[in-house]
Amino acid sequence: MIPRYSRPEMVAIWSPETKFRIWFEIEAHACDAMADLGIIPRENAEAVWKAKDVEFDVARIDEIEAVTKHDVIAFLTHLSEIVGAEQARFVHQGMTSSDVLDTTLNIQLVRATDILLADMDRVLAALKKRAFEHKYTVRIGRSHGIHAEPVTMGLTFARFYAEMARGRERLQRAREEIATGAISGAVGTFANIDPRVEEHVCAKMGLRPEPISTQVIPRDRHAMFFATLGVIASSIENIAVEIRHMQRTEVLEAEEYFSKGQKGSSAMPHKRNPVLTENLTGLARLIRSAVIPAMENVALWHERDISHSSVERGIAPDATVHLDFALNRLAGVIERLVVYPENMERNLNRLGGLVMSQRVLLALTQKGVSREDAYALVQRNAMKVWEEGKDFRTELLSDPDVRAVLSEEEINEKFDLGYHTKHVDTIFARVFGE
Amino acid sequence: MIPRYSRPEMVAIWSPETKFRIWFEIEAHACDAMADLGIIPRENAEAVWKAKDVEFDVARIDEIEAVTKHDVIAFLTHLSEIVGAEQARFVHQGMTSSDVLDTTLNIQLVRATDILLADMDRVLAALKKRAFEHKYTVRIGRSHGIHAEPVTMGLTFARFYAEMARGRERLQRAREEIATGAISGAVGTFANIDPRVEEHVCAKMGLRPEPISTQVIPRDRHAMFFATLGVIASSIENIAVEIRHMQRTEVLEAEEYFSKGQKGSSAMPHKRNPVLTENLTGLARLIRSAVIPAMENVALWHERDISHSSVERGIAPDATVHLDFALNRLAGVIERLVVYPENMERNLNRLGGLVMSQRVLLALTQKGVSREDAYALVQRNAMKVWEEGKDFRTELLSDPDVRAVLSEEEINEKFDLGYHTKHVDTIFARVFGE
Amino acid sequence: MIPRYSRPEMVAIWSPETKFRIWFEIEAHACDAMADLGIIPRENAEAVWKAKDVEFDVARIDEIEAVTKHDVIAFLTHLSEIVGAEQARFVHQGMTSSDVLDTTLNIQLVRATDILLADMDRVLAALKKRAFEHKYTVRIGRSHGIHAEPVTMGLTFARFYAEMARGRERLQRAREEIATGAISGAVGTFANIDPRVEEHVCAKMGLRPEPISTQVIPRDRHAMFFATLGVIASSIENIAVEIRHMQRTEVLEAEEYFSKGQKGSSAMPHKRNPVLTENLTGLARLIRSAVIPAMENVALWHERDISHSSVERGIAPDATVHLDFALNRLAGVIERLVVYPENMERNLNRLGGLVMSQRVLLALTQKGVSREDAYALVQRNAMKVWEEGKDFRTELLSDPDVRAVLSEEEINEKFDLGYHTKHVDTIFARVFGE
Amino acid sequence: MIPRYSRPEMVAIWSPETKFRIWFEIEAHACDAMADLGIIPRENAEAVWKAKDVEFDVARIDEIEAVTKHDVIAFLTHLSEIVGAEQARFVHQGMTSSDVLDTTLNIQLVRATDILLADMDRVLAALKKRAFEHKYTVRIGRSHGIHAEPVTMGLTFARFYAEMARGRERLQRAREEIATGAISGAVGTFANIDPRVEEHVCAKMGLRPEPISTQVIPRDRHAMFFATLGVIASSIENIAVEIRHMQRTEVLEAEEYFSKGQKGSSAMPHKRNPVLTENLTGLARLIRSAVIPAMENVALWHERDISHSSVERGIAPDATVHLDFALNRLAGVIERLVVYPENMERNLNRLGGLVMSQRVLLALTQKGVSREDAYALVQRNAMKVWEEGKDFRTELLSDPDVRAVLSEEEINEKFDLGYHTKHVDTIFARVFGE
Repeated sequence: MIPRYSRPEMVAIWSPETKFRIWFEIEAHACDAMADLGIIPRENAEAVWKAKDVEFDVARIDEIEAVTKHDVIAFLTHLSEIVGAEQARFVHQGMTSSDVLDTTLNIQLVRATDILLADMDRVLAALKKRAFEHKYTVRIGRSHGIHAEPVTMGLTFARFYAEMARGRERLQRAREEIATGAISGAVGTFANIDPRVEEHVCAKMGLRPEPISTQVIPRDRHAMFFATLGVIASSIENIAVEIRHMQRTEVLEAEEYFSKGQKGSSAMPHKRNPVLTENLTGLARLIRSAVIPAMENVALWHERDISHSSVERGIAPDATVHLDFALNRLAGVIERLVVYPENMERNLNRLGGLVMSQRVLLALTQKGVSREDAYALVQRNAMKVWEEGKDFRTELLSDPDVRAVLSEEEINEKFDLGYHTKHVDTIFARVFGE
Repeated sequence: MIPRYSRPEMVAIWSPETKFRIWFEIEAHACDAMADLGIIPRENAEAVWKAKDVEFDVARIDEIEAVTKHDVIAFLTHLSEIVGAEQARFVHQGMTSSDVLDTTLNIQLVRATDILLADMDRVLAALKKRAFEHKYTVRIGRSHGIHAEPVTMGLTFARFYAEMARGRERLQRAREEIATGAISGAVGTFANIDPRVEEHVCAKMGLRPEPISTQVIPRDRHAMFFATLGVIASSIENIAVEIRHMQRTEVLEAEEYFSKGQKGSSAMPHKRNPVLTENLTGLARLIRSAVIPAMENVALWHERDISHSSVERGIAPDATVHLDFALNRLAGVIERLVVYPENMERNLNRLGGLVMSQRVLLALTQKGVSREDAYALVQRNAMKVWEEGKDFRTELLSDPDVRAVLSEEEINEKFDLGYHTKHVDTIFARVFGE
Repeated sequence: MIPRYSRPEMVAIWSPETKFRIWFEIEAHACDAMADLGIIPRENAEAVWKAKDVEFDVARIDEIEAVTKHDVIAFLTHLSEIVGAEQARFVHQGMTSSDVLDTTLNIQLVRATDILLADMDRVLAALKKRAFEHKYTVRIGRSHGIHAEPVTMGLTFARFYAEMARGRERLQRAREEIATGAISGAVGTFANIDPRVEEHVCAKMGLRPEPISTQVIPRDRHAMFFATLGVIASSIENIAVEIRHMQRTEVLEAEEYFSKGQKGSSAMPHKRNPVLTENLTGLARLIRSAVIPAMENVALWHERDISHSSVERGIAPDATVHLDFALNRLAGVIERLVVYPENMERNLNRLGGLVMSQRVLLALTQKGVSREDAYALVQRNAMKVWEEGKDFRTELLSDPDVRAVLSEEEINEKFDLGYHTKHVDTIFARVFGE
Repeated sequence: MIPRYSRPEMVAIWSPETKFRIWFEIEAHACDAMADLGIIPRENAEAVWKAKDVEFDVARIDEIEAVTKHDVIAFLTHLSEIVGAEQARFVHQGMTSSDVLDTTLNIQLVRATDILLADMDRVLAALKKRAFEHKYTVRIGRSHGIHAEPVTMGLTFARFYAEMARGRERLQRAREEIATGAISGAVGTFANIDPRVEEHVCAKMGLRPEPISTQVIPRDRHAMFFATLGVIASSIENIAVEIRHMQRTEVLEAEEYFSKGQKGSSAMPHKRNPVLTENLTGLARLIRSAVIPAMENVALWHERDISHSSVERGIAPDATVHLDFALNRLAGVIERLVVYPENMERNLNRLGGLVMSQRVLLALTQKGVSREDAYALVQRNAMKVWEEGKDFRTELLSDPDVRAVLSEEEINEKFDLGYHTKHVDTIFARVFGE
């Protein structure tokens, strides 16, 4: 996890304090369930809750782990120091360490996802706001980086909104994927623990019981989870690349917000670099790098091997922390993106109206001109624009062969931008339902 | 696509014939819609359907493409040869090539997914059958490759069933992801085509209209699709690796089916190699290799660049064809897997009952022996088993200190396998709902 | 392998015919070596060479394989049909199938690499030619897509040359990595075959003996090989992305060559899409996708498992064929790239000289103006350029406070492009040694 | 970077302190060079070295960066506080931040590599020692996890030695790849800085000047570097997987060292889990995950975009720190691996001599028995071993049809392990040169 690309709330999920707190809750709820079932005395279950508001001493637990070389035992020893050995003696009964560890990992991932969902809501809100703001701000649409036909900036925001909304749905499903817990014992058979304990703990912790676990919760769930983060990261990259293109010196249709005081901006006023979106491009690569290792983690040997663990110690905090940061950075970029409609108009006109050539061609053929003749008519005027910098409409209007077929009004109509924006409403209704 | 790892039905989806047939249907339905809307004459729309049962001449289309360097134009020219130039003159009106190409790709992916779903059903049926067959076939559970506590072979099949059932759900959702079509024109604004044409074509082709497209359908959908295939491939690997382990000479709890006539089996009867599951392990790597390129395809420039195209020409057929093959190979392996319960029993007893040591330890402490003393009692008997090859139960029964606490019956009970299988029913009910 | 992105010479390397020819040569040379060592009769060795000029019947071999389910046995049976069973009876003696298969794979990879090296030479020659052609063609250097300071087009070509030259060296080393053969028997111990047979065969086939093999040649070699192709593919992408940027409508400093006859170019003369470099961008993703599977292939079980095989059936032809195609497409693009120096000049001047602001700032401070004052002086003139479209040099020349410090000549000197190109020679000497 | 998988020496390379120290040295050497060239006064260059033994105040630099939002400027400001503003005024003259940052990154990578090379030497020494120790410790060779023919444990170590030695060579070359520096100014043209400054700084810092840079050092170098780490990680996985297999309960030919005091070992003496090699398996996945992002970093826009930066902030420390840890963990595992020759012998004999069946078959045919008859003879004895647990040699010796062809001595000779180990010397000479 790179501190520079992290936010405290998400980092906190991956702290030792949070981890131990979750461990404690799992163990305490398990004791409750065992007491309910008459397996252990009620008072022992209740005694465990004495640690409810006690802050665990991470240094002390580390100290014990240095001796026992086992993190869960170290924690239980410390818990026992707080609760009292006699009272704590039924804690963890019938459970295996992985019951605690895997259930905890999923709780952390669920909590991380809840933050990410909120992040996406912020991104969505920003995109929607800017989409409506620029619903009819016309700019040239580009395919292959080459001018094609007009679109609007609102459509650009709207399509990113639609993409992010899909991402949010995917994330919601990814949350469901990993919202399971397992308290099923050494090899998942419940030999030493009643399945109702699992049910109770999961209900309390907001999880569903894993229908069938081994020593561990199956890793296809986590593979799907991290793959989903990878797709969302790729969508972030998609938006970031668009903004980077827009900010190019030659294009300059938008710029990342640049605070007045920011060093160096006015002696070289052009030198405002899209560093935030470039950063997002890199972060997308980083987040995606979790995908393949997560998939390689699926094929564990028999009832488990622990090869997945080191991978997850890396990718679980890294991918969630970096994605949280990236989504917030993205939201900020969109919220404050400086859009230059006048430059969009300038770019749109840069080709002297040539982007309308297809409409003219179509109009000529519709008037009965053969395809070949129509093509020749358009071509000879287009070349004057391209080679001599003339204006396409002016040339057409003054070309007698064109005028023999198309009236001034008809020609002018071909340059009407409204033609291109007439279905923006339809599309917005599809995307925003309004 | 590797011919050796392909099945004809899936390969057919990616043939030029299928592609041109879909192109035709899209164009013909679009004409119908335009006729319905009064945009083109009804008779021209009807005329197009003349080509409905005509087989397209792929060689002829290739010939035209060699001149025009444009595949869609080549096809349209050929279609025009069949329908008649005059009649065909409204075909493709207002559309862009990508309308046809992207909608077609999604139709192909949807059809491929339908085959994959059926494949998964076959895998699921096989897993379920074998799970019930071996519901109570006891084998040793292993963590880290080391004997832990007993499980049953049925549980192993059941957990693979649960994993594949999750995979099937994911695939169903992946199908929804890519079941969209777009007929929205050069930059997605419907400037030259009515959105109702898109609606009609999509309805006819079993797709939903893409809410907002550019020149292309957004590639986050495809990224999610291929990521899903990657997760399923990883689950295949998971099963394959388990079988490879089971077939090891020293373990031999199961073997891939080996036909009587298969060369070389009886002079070296042990040399039956798990080549099918090794092959599946490799195919999983291959299928997963589509995931990152599909994610890199998401960030296209502006309204589209064509960098995604070469990637998809590779991964779309390759990943679906190989996964189709792998799922069928897997189903065959499971259906015919030769299971050796007697070897499972032999392995289970290999450690002379040591795998029950934890239960004995627990029983002693529950009888009031201190944890330290109980540990020492278990340890001294365990070491005799480990170092001298004695039988753990026999040693315990003849240890007076143990017997002072535990009766013969109590000791014997600790070696009862029923203790470990008592919740198999519960788990099966969770997995299979029965 | 995607036929559209393949070239015949490279495809031929991966044909069954080539494969069987190599198999034959390995077997025949092995017989020679055994005859030399007195292990088998000389005449039997000589007899095998009868098949030297016989074309193997692939269909017949497939037919036999359908029965034996073993490709090497099928081939040997066919060879025996040609040579005569009696004469051929020592063929393959003491060898294992992998001796033939793995040695063949490496021979194919070596031959593929020789083609790739020639491809890179073509790319290098093109880059060098264009570098010298445009050694002093000035264009604006860009960081973050924003105008920075002048560079030359020759420098751009030169840095791609340097990068590709590094790629060629890497490829040369990758060739060495996989230029090994193994004829070491079932588990690599030479139990049934003399190590001198391996030495002889390798020498004849242009390989080094693998110092220690198991049943197979170790796969770290192949991992390194495909990783190297992945890096070269990334360098192709680097060049491709530069060209795509240059061809943007707003930039238009270069264009992919566009043949006169190519459809649709003149009615929309601006609509020349950089489809070749976009295609290269996609191919780079595809070629890179071989890297991780190749690395996953390294950890085979014990003396071998066959999981690597299906992976290699995919990636070996695919990655080499696509890279061969990509390098040739790239060479063609560079050789015929249409460069527009006049547009470079136009872009360079687009900011009215602002890109020289840093030099002016430096000049002022060197004349003793404080950093703050110098900054203010530059800033007030820069803002007039940025906001009102004035010319920077003109403004500076008419600013009395600036002129109090800098003479007209000194100001003009700051706009001299020679300042930026003065070390082009030095850099060219470093890159091209001339 | 995961603290648990890190070693202090490598972590130190990536500390702010180290980074600032390198920045300082680059700047100071650059001043020296400029003084040598007469560009700046000698005394100013000398003054900079006042900071040579001063510890930089990281908190202070962070404080300045919070204001300036620029890390290099923050450092230079702090340096100026130490050296004195007047004296420090020529520091960084003509340079761009990337000159410092990129050169520093490469210095860090070079230093990291030197540690990794030493790590590999430790691994190599351990492998060599164990190879000679077990040169003739016979164990069964396995293909597909199935018993094949005998090998020796020494050969296993030797092949890992050969693989790691190749890895070391690759790492040495990777070091050369990234041992370059650049002090070439804003866009790499040396417009504001003399190339001889770059030469001087590089010489002092142990680097070669980058022949042609832009604002940055080209990233194909780093892609190759991280790809190489990925291959080495895969080789670590290869060794780890072998050990995990050897430690399986049913195989138990070796075990990771397990300290006497380690909790829980003696009550369940069999439950010694290969957690270190499982951990290495996971770390390999993690290290490999740097490869694709590093390749995606190659295609920067024009003279640079900063997307690579966030990626490298992650992968550069992570991949080197984790690989350093993994190599040392691996060395420890090999040095202290507990090898069980008696279990190897037991496994070797597990199939009652069946693994020698091929030699017997060959012997029969060499004596003139037809292939079919020989096969039948071997088969009928083999099946008695396989199905009834008989001993193969005993059966052969008492089969009159076999004995009619082969003498007792000849049969016994087929079971001689020396046959399989006779070329171990040859192979060791190839690998170790001795």
